[in-house]
Amino acid sequence: MASKKLLLLPGDGIGPEAMNEVKKLIAAMNETLKSGFETEEGLVGGCAYDAHGQAVSDADMEKAMAADAVLFGAVGGPKWDAVPYEVRPEAGLLRLRKDLELFANLRPAICYPALAESSSLKPEVVEGLDILIVRELTGGVYFGEPKQIIDLGNGQKRGIDTQVYDTFEIERISGVAFELARTRKNHVTSMEKRNVMKSGVLWNEVVTATHKARYSDVKLDHMLADAGGMQLVRWPKQFDVIVTDNLFGDMLSDIAAMLTGSIGMLPSASLGAPDGKTGKRKALYEPVHGSAPDIAGQGIANPIAMIASFAMCLRYSFNMVEEADRVEAAIAAVLDEGLRTADIMSEGKTQVGTVEMGDAIVAKF
Amino acid sequence: MASKKLLLLPGDGIGPEAMNEVKKLIAAMNETLKSGFETEEGLVGGCAYDAHGQAVSDADMEKAMAADAVLFGAVGGPKWDAVPYEVRPEAGLLRLRKDLELFANLRPAICYPALAESSSLKPEVVEGLDILIVRELTGGVYFGEPKQIIDLGNGQKRGIDTQVYDTFEIERISGVAFELARTRKNHVTSMEKRNVMKSGVLWNEVVTATHKARYSDVKLDHMLADAGGMQLVRWPKQFDVIVTDNLFGDMLSDIAAMLTGSIGMLPSASLGAPDGKTGKRKALYEPVHGSAPDIAGQGIANPIAMIASFAMCLRYSFNMVEEADRVEAAIAAVLDEGLRTADIMSEGKTQVGTVEMGDAIVAKF
Ligand SMILES: CC(C)[C@H](C(=O)O)[C@@H](O)C(=O)O
Ligand SMILES: CC(C)[C@H](C(=O)O)[C@@H](O)C(=O)O
Repeated sequence: MASKKLLLLPGDGIGPEAMNEVKKLIAAMNETLKSGFETEEGLVGGCAYDAHGQAVSDADMEKAMAADAVLFGAVGGPKWDAVPYEVRPEAGLLRLRKDLELFANLRPAICYPALAESSSLKPEVVEGLDILIVRELTGGVYFGEPKQIIDLGNGQKRGIDTQVYDTFEIERISGVAFELARTRKNHVTSMEKRNVMKSGVLWNEVVTATHKARYSDVKLDHMLADAGGMQLVRWPKQFDVIVTDNLFGDMLSDIAAMLTGSIGMLPSASLGAPDGKTGKRKALYEPVHGSAPDIAGQGIANPIAMIASFAMCLRYSFNMVEEADRVEAAIAAVLDEGLRTADIMSEGKTQVGTVEMGDAIVAKF
Repeated sequence: MASKKLLLLPGDGIGPEAMNEVKKLIAAMNETLKSGFETEEGLVGGCAYDAHGQAVSDADMEKAMAADAVLFGAVGGPKWDAVPYEVRPEAGLLRLRKDLELFANLRPAICYPALAESSSLKPEVVEGLDILIVRELTGGVYFGEPKQIIDLGNGQKRGIDTQVYDTFEIERISGVAFELARTRKNHVTSMEKRNVMKSGVLWNEVVTATHKARYSDVKLDHMLADAGGMQLVRWPKQFDVIVTDNLFGDMLSDIAAMLTGSIGMLPSASLGAPDGKTGKRKALYEPVHGSAPDIAGQGIANPIAMIASFAMCLRYSFNMVEEADRVEAAIAAVLDEGLRTADIMSEGKTQVGTVEMGDAIVAKF
């Protein structure tokens, strides 16, 4: 691989603190392994709005386009609650996803053995949990038009959003889910609301056809999204890969993350289609947790999700499988040794801050 | 109250078995208390389709319009998976909701003390849980137009659904939530995705304005719906009343129900606006669980959610508060005595069938 250009977008809240720990790891890899990562930085979210009135600038979008991968922290906070809708912090993230065509969002929900007891679920329900939510990320109600508020007069307004899915969008996201299932337990569960939504009817039809045409070796189940949410809470281990649309994926992946008791630990990857010539795909990696403005700047945030997102980056963008394994092993090792940030602290463990946690992981790497 | 006309729509799957137990209770009340309930029956769902090719007939809709309350069992099953979208079983339920203008769906999520251990969540997380989800039921993506699948040619189709909310719809559902909160812990949490959806922006604005104008004595919080789902799983007792739209309400109320470990126990009420003259409101009562075709006809279904739905009917449609309390007390009493249907069975308890459970509750009443 010729270039290894990373764009770092730390964002708001605890984003910058978490990103700092990744920077240390990158520096260490460049020094000891000669990994040759080149990093640039940009602004996204509230900080970008403060700097130049946009949730992400065109210049930073160009950097993102040119990068081999983007590492993204988190955006948003009460400071920007009243900014106009078009330039709210989230608009930066949504523009990155849309303009880079990152249609496939991979959200593993893994229960770290050392943390099973910090889940609100019974240990036997979550111990050993390892599921992967594959969420469609560039379609659906997030981007469909019309999306507007109309003034009807008489004090009445109308808010409209449009859920739209085309065959090809459902085909390509289900292809990703089936391919990944083959590397796992070979089981895909597709979730929609076909009993209420026409897009759900089409979703069901296209997933079924894609399965029949190209992936009939994979076990496929269909579940209504509301029942799917219930089943996630009841017995999540029945799932391997879940494929679903943008909005259901938003809800279901957050719930899956919370089950593990490790929301501060979970990474995600957002991938584009492989380039026809080079085979490279655009990619953005981000923790599942948000910007947590209430604890920002205190040095107590958990950097593990951000570091684990970098491990996904090594794996998916640079095929550095061994290095990715080593990062993940380093995370598991510090947890086994009893180090905990405040969010995952429990009796008898050693509470540490963001920097100490990052240092410990880099040292183990 | 002059008339007490009930329309019973048992529906499909375990619906009829569960409804039979309510019929016994109605008969007992008519006999011992001279309650004067008049019942009629109709078809809805797959059985209505089998009988006359519609998910609910015009004649049964007329009966529903004329009734003081509708008791609804459940609809759907694999038998009708391939029927046309317009006449699928769920269409019957959706038509009832829409044509009766039942905009307010009340879904209590209560953890029966006797059943705390059957939850997948830790007992301390769910013990004593008592929250109420107020779901908007006649708007949003369920009914918005356009709702269609378009053939784009070249093997491509487009599935479209439209999420629409008007000011007055949000106003009236939040009014219901605030009113109910006043009879409870005086706390409402409103959930939407205003960071992504324009309807969410309007939702947030109107709930805030309604609160300010008429309910400023009630504590109001706003939460993004994905974060709300997480918080439900993490620590549900932080909530009292949750108010949300049709689709988020569908997801969140099912998750809340599953938390309690008592999905076979939970009732719901769907209410219209009070009539300007009589003050009466149209109403439909249904269990939160579905038709469970896999166990239908075996006499093992749990009738408690259906019976508890009738208790809600006594309370909300006939102001028979004392009788409602007595039904709920009878349910709690049989549970305390150790009677369990298969879905809630645990060691040391006495397993009974649908009929035995119904009989035991009627006997305690
Ligand atoms: C920040 C927000 C726009 C985003 C989303 O809704 O997709 C977030 O919740 C997520 O899941 O990544
Ligand atoms: C049966 C179905 C149409 C219905 C819904 O989606 O509203 C059900 O899931 C419910 O929650 O009552």
